[in-house]
Amino acid sequence: MKHHYSIGLDFGTESVRAIVVDVANGELVGQSSRAYFNGVIDTVLPGTDVHLPPEYALQSPTDWLDGASVACREAMLGAGVSPQDVIGIGVDFTSCTMLPALRDGTPLCCVPGFERIPLAWPKLWKHHAAKAATQRINQVARERAEAWLARYGGIVGLEWLFPKILETLTDAPAVYDATEVWLEAGDWFVWQLTSGPFPACRADDLIRSTCQAGYKGLWSAEAGYPSREFLSAVDPQLADVVATKMPGRFLPPGCLAGVLTRASAERLGLAPGTPVSAAIIDAHAGVPGSGATGPDTLVLVMGTSSCHMINSVVGHEIPGVAGVVRDGILPGYFGYETGQAAVGDAFAWVARLTGKSHEELNSQAALLAPGSGGVLAIDWLNGCRTPLMDGSLTGTLFGLRLGTQPAQIYRAMMEATAFGLRTIVNLLRDGGVPITRFVASGGLPARSPLLMQIYADVLNADIELAGTDQSVALGAAILGALASRPITVQAEEMEQIIKAMTPRHDDKSYHPNPHNAVTYQKLYDQYHSLTRAGSIALTVAGPTMVD
Amino acid sequence: MKHHYSIGLDFGTESVRAIVVDVANGELVGQSSRAYFNGVIDTVLPGTDVHLPPEYALQSPTDWLDGASVACREAMLGAGVSPQDVIGIGVDFTSCTMLPALRDGTPLCCVPGFERIPLAWPKLWKHHAAKAATQRINQVARERAEAWLARYGGIVGLEWLFPKILETLTDAPAVYDATEVWLEAGDWFVWQLTSGPFPACRADDLIRSTCQAGYKGLWSAEAGYPSREFLSAVDPQLADVVATKMPGRFLPPGCLAGVLTRASAERLGLAPGTPVSAAIIDAHAGVPGSGATGPDTLVLVMGTSSCHMINSVVGHEIPGVAGVVRDGILPGYFGYETGQAAVGDAFAWVARLTGKSHEELNSQAALLAPGSGGVLAIDWLNGCRTPLMDGSLTGTLFGLRLGTQPAQIYRAMMEATAFGLRTIVNLLRDGGVPITRFVASGGLPARSPLLMQIYADVLNADIELAGTDQSVALGAAILGALASRPITVQAEEMEQIIKAMTPRHDDKSYHPNPHNAVTYQKLYDQYHSLTRAGSIALTVAGPTMVD
Repeated sequence: MKHHYSIGLDFGTESVRAIVVDVANGELVGQSSRAYFNGVIDTVLPGTDVHLPPEYALQSPTDWLDGASVACREAMLGAGVSPQDVIGIGVDFTSCTMLPALRDGTPLCCVPGFERIPLAWPKLWKHHAAKAATQRINQVARERAEAWLARYGGIVGLEWLFPKILETLTDAPAVYDATEVWLEAGDWFVWQLTSGPFPACRADDLIRSTCQAGYKGLWSAEAGYPSREFLSAVDPQLADVVATKMPGRFLPPGCLAGVLTRASAERLGLAPGTPVSAAIIDAHAGVPGSGATGPDTLVLVMGTSSCHMINSVVGHEIPGVAGVVRDGILPGYFGYETGQAAVGDAFAWVARLTGKSHEELNSQAALLAPGSGGVLAIDWLNGCRTPLMDGSLTGTLFGLRLGTQPAQIYRAMMEATAFGLRTIVNLLRDGGVPITRFVASGGLPARSPLLMQIYADVLNADIELAGTDQSVALGAAILGALASRPITVQAEEMEQIIKAMTPRHDDKSYHPNPHNAVTYQKLYDQYHSLTRAGSIALTVAGPTMVD
Repeated sequence: MKHHYSIGLDFGTESVRAIVVDVANGELVGQSSRAYFNGVIDTVLPGTDVHLPPEYALQSPTDWLDGASVACREAMLGAGVSPQDVIGIGVDFTSCTMLPALRDGTPLCCVPGFERIPLAWPKLWKHHAAKAATQRINQVARERAEAWLARYGGIVGLEWLFPKILETLTDAPAVYDATEVWLEAGDWFVWQLTSGPFPACRADDLIRSTCQAGYKGLWSAEAGYPSREFLSAVDPQLADVVATKMPGRFLPPGCLAGVLTRASAERLGLAPGTPVSAAIIDAHAGVPGSGATGPDTLVLVMGTSSCHMINSVVGHEIPGVAGVVRDGILPGYFGYETGQAAVGDAFAWVARLTGKSHEELNSQAALLAPGSGGVLAIDWLNGCRTPLMDGSLTGTLFGLRLGTQPAQIYRAMMEATAFGLRTIVNLLRDGGVPITRFVASGGLPARSPLLMQIYADVLNADIELAGTDQSVALGAAILGALASRPITVQAEEMEQIIKAMTPRHDDKSYHPNPHNAVTYQKLYDQYHSLTRAGSIALTVAGPTMVD
């Protein structure tokens, strides 16, 4: 039987990865990754002596093109697969990573005269210099009681699209004026593949992902982008930005955005005409990539921070849930996104504070009973994402005694992140979103069986581990396979394709210990009451720097 | 001019110290200390194979006699002082360290047949095996609404006299039956000096200190010991313990208990007939020893834990203040005792937790601004003594972020103990006790100028350092000088004597920084509201071990 393959292109913060996957069984037959030549640009603009202000984080579009080209060719070489057997390509990208471009696809930083202007370059998701713009947008949105605010839990994020556009209008008006197209980097890259590369792109070919637009661009299928009235109130010069500088059609991830042009195929070492899916945010690609075949599976993407996502047939606005987007993750479903701002980072803080290794702390923590000998933590060391969406909130350690040991604090922090997850699960369920299955992916689950057992005990539910540690790239490859179908894929066929490409391993599941689950129910009640009390106390009279 | 000297005998937990002091100027002209031969007896009874139960802490009375004899002779030898020039002796002792004895002064553990019975031995203050007895006494006292409970903030301590007596009645009735005199070790030692040594003591000579009796024995000048009715309700066999087994007259520290017998003088290398003061609790001796010449000076005795004491002309029962005793510290004043259960111990915990030295943490903490970069601690790592008197309460660290450093936690813990002290100061002042001056003594003040500056800033008041690091032993020597007066000393003369023996050094004062004082006012308000909220949250739903 002839095998067919799909390619996932996974654009992370530091590097791009290409994988080649057998669509019949999910086997990863080839892979390669390439660090961006200029990495994260946060000190000096490449090839210049232009120093960047604080909080800037930029990237180079040619790094994306060059890196993907090398990685894809190497992955294909390693796989020994013929380009003709590749049936589709999926692209996931960090977000909101965005750029100003011309209508022919040329990034503004590649236009002569703009190379030395920082804001002409793509802004990486973690570019944090748009603080004033974010405040302005939130202020006007609250004043006007914009209906779309409810979809985002009442607040626009510092890293999102419109703050980054407004920042440019304010701080670099010449760049704003010269910009013909504002767009997400993921959409730009798909545009390059299917219409370019620049300067051959046509604005009519531009496809925008409903994922990026929905989660980071304040867009919805029903209401589109924020209104001209709103944008005008933010800044009169911003009034027509949507109409004049944001062309494109919207498609969900997994839908056909176009096919590889000859020139793009040449770059990647693939065949012209290969189908390309609409882009997706990298974390969100982990949902299908972790084996969430249909609705009601909560995918826990666990790393330095955690992002928990679920597809559902029901669409509800839930206070505290930062994003619910129709077709946001897969076509046909409402995608919900929730998050915890410090998970692996919180454990690393304990290790740094105590000067002990994760290995030592893990092995000692595993000997402790649930409850960490009386220590109870609040895990808000990087603020609280879901449900309070307040980066100024802080962590707490309760129950300290003279005999309290580092491993108790380490385990308490693990338990606190589990309680934080349970808060999110309760929030979704109370909001009417069914959850019947949990799948964990990301770097943390494989490294700490103790952590996963605590999560299973605290949720009192089975937790499956994703079958691969490359669930994000695999998710992109799945989108490539979905986009290869002659007509837009339907739910049943989509489930079959995802199921085939994410085979399960029964030995990679954690089951709750009923005895521990009872204990953790009591501890969770304490965490819940303390986080409510704590959030009040620390917001009203909290120990912020008073001087 | 002929010089006169006083001797202080300072009985600590591990050793006894003797000092020889010039009464004209407080100069310490000789000193020596001797570790008790058997130290703290908590595993095996000396000279036997009798193993002790958990929580036992006993001492040997012959260790006290032998240790004092050697230390006093060595101190006198070093001083080169003639015994005839010693005008008085003062004795301070840990408390409640108590023992069962015969009417001739013989400790029961020295009576043949009782050597192998643990409860026939003196119980050290930190003997913690009387838990059931303590509960029983508190239960009956609450049920009967005993008026004296208010003087102790509503609770009888585990380490006090009557729990230790009841424990013996319950667990070793033969010892209880054979006991003819229950008494404090400090009183026993003064009895030895003025009437003994055993078996020559006469019960008629026995003087009990109003300090030990008032703070640890539920006694007051107005009401005496708890009533026969109360004791009978606790246990019918205890009904007549005061009448039959607790002979003696009560005198305040600084009053003449008697003079050295020939045999006792021989042991100590002193002259027969030398005046001996009534005893005092060791910490309380630090009040005159630190230079609190009269009322309204709060003496901060700062070490692993802290004890803050003050003499006042007013006597009020203040909820949360564990002890107010007329003539409790010096004759003519009401003595108030308050405490913080973890101070130096809390800083040591941070050092252990972070694996860093006090030196490093101190020097880094000194570079931080008031507020420790947003970290706010609750210092209850060993429970809360004043005002909540609850050993089960625990410490908290608020305001933790991923960048929080060990030195921030260290400084926050320093600030928290300062806030705890301020809580006590406010409690006393709100209760009607004037405080016009602060003097710090103990081991900590000299070791950490940063800590003392924080205390001055948080109290917004000058803090003087005691002129000596031996304020407890010096306090005992002062009592010896007071006892040498032909008639009981009056307030004015007492102040003159104390002032002469505790000369001040102006360079050893800390003055508040007005700017920091403003900042700390705000932070204290936060601490105050969080300790109130925290005590509720952690008592009601606190993170105790649930399993």
